[in-house]
Amino acid sequence: MAYELYYWPSTPGRGEFVRLALEEGGADYVDVARRKDGMPKMMKLLNGPRVAEPPFAPPFLRSGKLLIAQTANILLYLGDELGLAPANEAGRLWTHQLQLTIADLVAEAHDAHHPVGSSLYYEDQKREAKRRAEDFHRNRIPKYLGYFEKVLSRNPRGERYLVGSRITYADLSLFEIVAGLGYAFPQAMKRQARRYPLAMALHDRVAARPRIAVYLGSKRRLPYDQVGIFRHYKELDG
Amino acid sequence: MAYELYYWPSTPGRGEFVRLALEEGGADYVDVARRKDGMPKMMKLLNGPRVAEPPFAPPFLRSGKLLIAQTANILLYLGDELGLAPANEAGRLWTHQLQLTIADLVAEAHDAHHPVGSSLYYEDQKREAKRRAEDFHRNRIPKYLGYFEKVLSRNPRGERYLVGSRITYADLSLFEIVAGLGYAFPQAMKRQARRYPLAMALHDRVAARPRIAVYLGSKRRLPYDQVGIFRHYKELDG
Repeated sequence: MAYELYYWPSTPGRGEFVRLALEEGGADYVDVARRKDGMPKMMKLLNGPRVAEPPFAPPFLRSGKLLIAQTANILLYLGDELGLAPANEAGRLWTHQLQLTIADLVAEAHDAHHPVGSSLYYEDQKREAKRRAEDFHRNRIPKYLGYFEKVLSRNPRGERYLVGSRITYADLSLFEIVAGLGYAFPQAMKRQARRYPLAMALHDRVAARPRIAVYLGSKRRLPYDQVGIFRHYKELDG
Repeated sequence: MAYELYYWPSTPGRGEFVRLALEEGGADYVDVARRKDGMPKMMKLLNGPRVAEPPFAPPFLRSGKLLIAQTANILLYLGDELGLAPANEAGRLWTHQLQLTIADLVAEAHDAHHPVGSSLYYEDQKREAKRRAEDFHRNRIPKYLGYFEKVLSRNPRGERYLVGSRITYADLSLFEIVAGLGYAFPQAMKRQARRYPLAMALHDRVAARPRIAVYLGSKRRLPYDQVGIFRHYKELDG
């Protein structure tokens, strides 16, 4: 039976991390909310009174009887299902640990343009966003990307992947981070990229994988925009 | 062999979620950085050049050969080890999903006083913090605590726990959330508490558990302060 992915239909956002895993894993899946009549189905699972284990927010995944939310949790599950994480406990925990650090970075990338609150328009927090984006460029991107660079460089199995000698969902997510940051902050990332050669090479290597390359060229891959996690505002591009 | 917990020695912070699980589970553990010469040991694991799988930040846990970071990841592991989560896959994922939502709330509770960046003093972002704290009180606390209230009310096994009919690490973490928010925002939480009777009852029930009660009365429980996640600034107590 096909997996059912539920996520806002108009933006890559957090759903994209799940899509990349499904695509690389060659999974049969339906991107429910992008189909006709899909949105009411998603909203019913989100807000319906009879869901015993309701998600807090999209994305969530239906797999048989399971309804799984929280991006990193979905990937923990799909890592096992699709062979996108080591099977042993130490490797599973390490891959998940990296994913949770990526999740922290995703939240901060969002808050760079919405430091006061997601209930307000960007225009109502422009001044605060400028300050936060400055801190993001100066302190946070170097801390995070420097960390992943370090992880790649120390991998005892070589610098091609974050974990071991095969691709995991954490690599796919790091690809999405590099792609998203490159969209949101083209100037800043252009200047910073040379400091993270291993992460940049990983990005290119993931993009060239057969299934991912097909996916990126398809309509299933949503373009970045101005409503999602990664947004381009010239004045925030440090 | 005792677990080794590594966390900043002066503040409960994210380490507290791990401590509560270790205490409720009756685990033998060492709170390394609070011991004499513990800090250099922690910093070596964090920044030492030979750590193959380095943590991004504290807390992290050493258990035999495993070095596990990211609070929710540590709890995923301890849930199995200490019997603080269901053993079946569906229950494990659901408990972890709730924990990841708690982790999101923890990050937002921090950003309520540090919306521009953790590299800056509170005094340098007071104005932004006032706006963010307002949004936190008006929109985010109701969304999160309302969600956990809903989860408790829908638990098919009763309203005493978030998951099933036994305590899990997610319950312990929700206790810490209620306690921490109550410290940071006493006025606001006093007004809001009546809307979340199940979460408040859970808090009291956890506090009264024999091992937790002993722990809370001991020196192992660090007091809340003005450097951690939960801080009390009168002007932010909406």
